[in-house]
Amino acid sequence: MPQSMKTLTVALDERSYPIHIGRGLLGKPEWVLPHVHGQQVMIVSNETVAPLYLAQARAAFPELTVETVILPDGEQFKTLDTLNLVFSALLEHRFDRQCTLVALGGGVVGDITGFAAASYQRGVNFIQIPTTLLSQVDSSVGGKTGVNHPLGKNMIGAFHQPQCVLIDTETLNTLEDNQLSAGLAEVIKYGLIDDAEFFGWLEQHCDELRQRQPEALAEAIKRSCQNKADVVAADEKETGRRALLNFGHTFGHAIESGMGYGSWLHGEAVAIGMLMAADLSRREGELDTGQVERIHALLKKAGLPTHTPSALDPERFLELMAVDKKALAGKIRLVLLTSIGASHVSDNYNPQLLRKTLDEFHRTSTAAATP
Amino acid sequence: MPQSMKTLTVALDERSYPIHIGRGLLGKPEWVLPHVHGQQVMIVSNETVAPLYLAQARAAFPELTVETVILPDGEQFKTLDTLNLVFSALLEHRFDRQCTLVALGGGVVGDITGFAAASYQRGVNFIQIPTTLLSQVDSSVGGKTGVNHPLGKNMIGAFHQPQCVLIDTETLNTLEDNQLSAGLAEVIKYGLIDDAEFFGWLEQHCDELRQRQPEALAEAIKRSCQNKADVVAADEKETGRRALLNFGHTFGHAIESGMGYGSWLHGEAVAIGMLMAADLSRREGELDTGQVERIHALLKKAGLPTHTPSALDPERFLELMAVDKKALAGKIRLVLLTSIGASHVSDNYNPQLLRKTLDEFHRTSTAAATP
Repeated sequence: MPQSMKTLTVALDERSYPIHIGRGLLGKPEWVLPHVHGQQVMIVSNETVAPLYLAQARAAFPELTVETVILPDGEQFKTLDTLNLVFSALLEHRFDRQCTLVALGGGVVGDITGFAAASYQRGVNFIQIPTTLLSQVDSSVGGKTGVNHPLGKNMIGAFHQPQCVLIDTETLNTLEDNQLSAGLAEVIKYGLIDDAEFFGWLEQHCDELRQRQPEALAEAIKRSCQNKADVVAADEKETGRRALLNFGHTFGHAIESGMGYGSWLHGEAVAIGMLMAADLSRREGELDTGQVERIHALLKKAGLPTHTPSALDPERFLELMAVDKKALAGKIRLVLLTSIGASHVSDNYNPQLLRKTLDEFHRTSTAAATP
Repeated sequence: MPQSMKTLTVALDERSYPIHIGRGLLGKPEWVLPHVHGQQVMIVSNETVAPLYLAQARAAFPELTVETVILPDGEQFKTLDTLNLVFSALLEHRFDRQCTLVALGGGVVGDITGFAAASYQRGVNFIQIPTTLLSQVDSSVGGKTGVNHPLGKNMIGAFHQPQCVLIDTETLNTLEDNQLSAGLAEVIKYGLIDDAEFFGWLEQHCDELRQRQPEALAEAIKRSCQNKADVVAADEKETGRRALLNFGHTFGHAIESGMGYGSWLHGEAVAIGMLMAADLSRREGELDTGQVERIHALLKKAGLPTHTPSALDPERFLELMAVDKKALAGKIRLVLLTSIGASHVSDNYNPQLLRKTLDEFHRTSTAAATP
């Protein structure tokens, strides 16, 4: 087994699947072939990732029919139309019900490919090879797949579990620094919602992670996936505990949609969102100031923004939070902290304190924007 | 309880749901309200059915938010684009995860609405109110939902079970005669594949059914749904026994796609397909001539075609059968009969006998087409 190789098993009611994490796993048949049942493999990737890793990824499927479909890169292409490109490729090559779809890329590729696998002939197998830190720690666990609609993000999709997930830490060497930081936001989230010890570990190893030290990356990815798996296993269809994974996301989605999807990275928006949720938790008297400062410090160390965009005033911010899907018919539910590593869902916070959090962040961002 | 009212429970691993069948059930809250969980109901119908039954259907949901989306009518609109009309309507009205979709119409409306329910926010509830005989006896059981792709029928979809199915036999009074006959083809299919007694009942009551006698209709629909439920319950994801439901369909799909979808009704094509499968079964020495004649006679009595379209020669027919999804990677699997009421899946029939069946039907249809 390669050095720093780790395998995690995600246990689910119906079946379990492995997440293999390590350096140099891409293109090695032993990690993926046991999970291919038919003779046909469709690798779905995008214009950015394919030139870097497609040839290597193909090598893992010797003696099988391997076809590829290359999607345009970007969240704006996470649509039904792009999804249909995958269906067309599958049908043009007469792929049958035993075929396997392989997602090679970040979250968008994974979400589209997973939904294509859920829907093609009402469900075929798929393997995930996430190549960004965000998708490695987020999409690897949970089975959420789907596309956006012009009126809402991730509104169309399915729960569909992969046969296996393969994470090669070497793919992170070609990732932009801001994308790596955006992934770290989700990693930090797992520490915040239910793993204080992991949060402490991240405070110690943040620099190694930003330098892409493989051992540290594999450890951070494994612990993140483990944390998510623990939450999801208890609650596969998101009715209770799974909502904790939305920590920072209601604020974050407001920023993403208010600024236009694509102008802020998801992880960057979530980072700010977590800080806002921590600030509200403090105002509610649930979280002490010292812990808020530790959160602020780690986000900064991870290269993440700590100011909201000054263009969003508090009224607009609230409006955007209210259309987030978690609040479509009622009060905005938020995840709050009682300490680092302890979170809960709340809809009985004081709205005036939420307003104060929004005002304060707006004031700071406006001040920061003024020369 | 109204006269001739019948309720059937479809038992599934995860949960069960009722099919209520009877005269005058549409618009009565007691049959559907227990299955609505949230406050929002979206009725999906089409341009043909909505003017006839939408107002009546709405009356079943007092004190709830009821919105509607009216789709164009026809198999050619069973597409991702039409599906997206449903998503747009749901999002424009800010429907949440507790909402309920109601399919009011035939198979196309049911399949699109079911897939929309499977995919909207990764799954919401839905209620089926099928208004054609075909959809009442076919889509009511099995949870198959989906849309077509230009390269293949029903290639995109999901398994998604309804909360309940409501069948009002009065909606059949406005159904065209050929549509009623097409539905009878599927009814006859259930008798053929595993219920000889039901086949005998149909021989006795075929005229009453064509005259839309409510008691007979309710009985035929109930027994059809029960037969399908028995097959599906044993095999929800279609790996074995469920394939029997494709009796006549591989031949039928070849006719539908060869003649252009929409020019032959599905049930008409299936009727011919069943006759062809029976003919092949006879040539294989599995089925006796007297039984083939009974099948032929009942199909005729039901107002169904017994000649293939002369435009399709045997070569083209075989080619079209081979691209049917059940045969995408290998030999064409067919359902054959050993007697009325006893069927099995086969891929070791003699291909030369299949060719003889195709030749013979082509010869007869060409002769029939010549004045």
